[in-house]
Amino acid sequence: MRELIAKKRDGGVLTREEIERIVRGYVHGEIPDYQVAAWLMACFLRGLNDQETLALTEVMAQSGEQLNLSEVQPPTLDKHSTGGVGDKTSLVVVPLLASAGISIAKMSGRGLGFTGGTVDKLESIPGYRTALSAQQMIEQVKRIGCCLAGQSEQLAPADKKLYALRDATATVESIPLIASSIMSKKLAGGARHLLLDVKVGAGAFMTTLEQAQNLAQTLIAIGKGAGRIVAALLTDMNQPLGHTVGNALEVREAIETLTPSARAHPRFRELCLQLAALGLQLCGLEPSESTAYQRAQHLLDSGAALDKFRQMVKAQGGDPRIVEEPDRLPTAPIVHPLTAPSTGFIQTVHPRQIALATVQLGAGRQKKEDTIDHAVGVEVLKSVGEPVTQGEPILRVHARTEASLQAVLPLLQQAILISPHPVEPPPIVIRKMYE
Amino acid sequence: MRELIAKKRDGGVLTREEIERIVRGYVHGEIPDYQVAAWLMACFLRGLNDQETLALTEVMAQSGEQLNLSEVQPPTLDKHSTGGVGDKTSLVVVPLLASAGISIAKMSGRGLGFTGGTVDKLESIPGYRTALSAQQMIEQVKRIGCCLAGQSEQLAPADKKLYALRDATATVESIPLIASSIMSKKLAGGARHLLLDVKVGAGAFMTTLEQAQNLAQTLIAIGKGAGRIVAALLTDMNQPLGHTVGNALEVREAIETLTPSARAHPRFRELCLQLAALGLQLCGLEPSESTAYQRAQHLLDSGAALDKFRQMVKAQGGDPRIVEEPDRLPTAPIVHPLTAPSTGFIQTVHPRQIALATVQLGAGRQKKEDTIDHAVGVEVLKSVGEPVTQGEPILRVHARTEASLQAVLPLLQQAILISPHPVEPPPIVIRKMYE
Repeated sequence: MRELIAKKRDGGVLTREEIERIVRGYVHGEIPDYQVAAWLMACFLRGLNDQETLALTEVMAQSGEQLNLSEVQPPTLDKHSTGGVGDKTSLVVVPLLASAGISIAKMSGRGLGFTGGTVDKLESIPGYRTALSAQQMIEQVKRIGCCLAGQSEQLAPADKKLYALRDATATVESIPLIASSIMSKKLAGGARHLLLDVKVGAGAFMTTLEQAQNLAQTLIAIGKGAGRIVAALLTDMNQPLGHTVGNALEVREAIETLTPSARAHPRFRELCLQLAALGLQLCGLEPSESTAYQRAQHLLDSGAALDKFRQMVKAQGGDPRIVEEPDRLPTAPIVHPLTAPSTGFIQTVHPRQIALATVQLGAGRQKKEDTIDHAVGVEVLKSVGEPVTQGEPILRVHARTEASLQAVLPLLQQAILISPHPVEPPPIVIRKMYE
Repeated sequence: MRELIAKKRDGGVLTREEIERIVRGYVHGEIPDYQVAAWLMACFLRGLNDQETLALTEVMAQSGEQLNLSEVQPPTLDKHSTGGVGDKTSLVVVPLLASAGISIAKMSGRGLGFTGGTVDKLESIPGYRTALSAQQMIEQVKRIGCCLAGQSEQLAPADKKLYALRDATATVESIPLIASSIMSKKLAGGARHLLLDVKVGAGAFMTTLEQAQNLAQTLIAIGKGAGRIVAALLTDMNQPLGHTVGNALEVREAIETLTPSARAHPRFRELCLQLAALGLQLCGLEPSESTAYQRAQHLLDSGAALDKFRQMVKAQGGDPRIVEEPDRLPTAPIVHPLTAPSTGFIQTVHPRQIALATVQLGAGRQKKEDTIDHAVGVEVLKSVGEPVTQGEPILRVHARTEASLQAVLPLLQQAILISPHPVEPPPIVIRKMYE
């Protein structure tokens, strides 16, 4: 192991066999964590090339259970977002694409720190089961076309162990290490088509376009190297996505977005449509961008996507009545508006500050062990570029207690900047990237 | 700790307080080894500046017992060699300088890998005790001016713990880390003057002049920063030093070098004289290089240095008769000559191959737990530049068993190259460096 550490330390390129030896040795307890920690820091500072990154990803993907989707109806697709604030996109896009005949066995994570997790959001639906076995997932996808479940403990255990060590040793923020961690779980997920939403901005892990592009390129290169068909959207995360941040609030917004003729946040709807259109094209179901986009619109506006969502909720034990009666979702006892301090145009809605306030309200986790309150969160009533009048509500806080409400108000007051001059709203989709 | 790792990872400069927190936290078991391993790799790849290196050195020096030399007669001096093959210089230079009135409480290490250790060499003297307490060392230095003892377990324990981790994580070969490890023990040793012998060449840790110079500069900068008076010689280690490699053989050669009118290897004698002269100047006992060199010669040729060596051996429980009767030192049952395969001039005596053969004969350690055979080793009868005639002995192997002799012969045959053309012998001292 010393020689392998030294090789990477000196900028050498590790072979697949060498990477396999390190990862397997670590998972089997034969290589101590301090040696792997030194190796990770060497990888962080020296980098990994595309071959090394692919090898690391595949070795991690093969370290545990892998979903065998050979029995489900092709095309198979998986979707991944690199994480943001108010990102409930999967709740809309997965049933939307499933309603077009694409099979999606999607596993999601829980929220940690400033980002929410799809699994936490789903668990705000009364009765909804996120802990499905591989067989249960496959059966459900065969039957209704999709599932949205939690990540199995057996999925890429090598990634889990390495990620915990990276977290403790300041070796998280490395593009090849981030990319291999993401893709190891996607490869183990078994789908042939991978639809990636790489967030960029103040509320994302990648704060600059350059970083986000590097990450997207690396993700695409891994997918291609592993024989998958991959496309990515680089999307803006400089303000919360949609109107809501918080678990039940986001499920409610997803349902509104899926419901024909209900009000939907235009920017969030646009993201869902563009991602869905890209997925349709990726799977070869539509020949062009414009037909794909029209098809996605139709699936949303016809109620087909909502219907698929209802089937999925029901299949996973959730109360399907929430679709028509969203008030059955948990609600917070205190709902408190924040008003605009001046007249003008929304210049900034700081996503991290909104996220931090939401976590403080109890909607997220500061530590892995924390339990979460599904009802609480923040409604963002105005987005960047919208005009506001002094005294008009701009945020609505959903809190469990008066104390928790008071605790987050100063933070939320600072989260929004109003400009006296018109502000151009930034586009949601920045770039489309194919392999 | 994560923030401190990240700071160094990103090329930041750590404060003394931060370095103290890391080292103390590690020694006290509050920071896990995997975090320190990642930090060490970040230090290895990002480097440490002079202030950081000094802080690390001082924190390690203060982590355990420190020798208080306030009671011994000034000037006090310590000597250190970065390690080579056949390096028995301390056995000559320490008594030589002590015979000029310099107080030297020197602690040495054991051999590991290709380098020998002064403590192992001394232990080939029947009865010689290397395990002295701090108080015993100080008492002996007060009485006779010097001691040569083993390193206390309590000396710089932080360095011991960090070194073991560096060894396991491929983070040894970093100039600031090497320099702080060396100097932490020298600072804890308490002497005001430090005489450094930085070896460079195929038989040294630093194989290029540039590396050796960097190391010497760093060592000097640390010493100066810690208020010590430091000088270094950069000396050649492209062939074994002197005639012998192996513990008792080297003690015998040291005695021969100390004995007036006995044969001495001219290159080894020259190194001893130049180091001693530098020590005399450093301590302010001689005003110029030439008077210092003459004084060193006189102390050697008058028998004063030998007399001091005898006193030291006696004071530490060794049999002083070995000085006049070196045959009382352990001898090997088998002594086998290797002869020159051709006539010409010695071009190369590969120090690593000689060292490897010596370790294989049993004179050194491959692992820390190995016990050593003091009697075995290799005599190097010819040095680079000397003329040889085909069939003339060039090496003499001292072996315990016929099997061990046969095992090393092929290695030794490859260790020496003979050129048909005259070869210029390289000078032993390459450069002198002051603060």
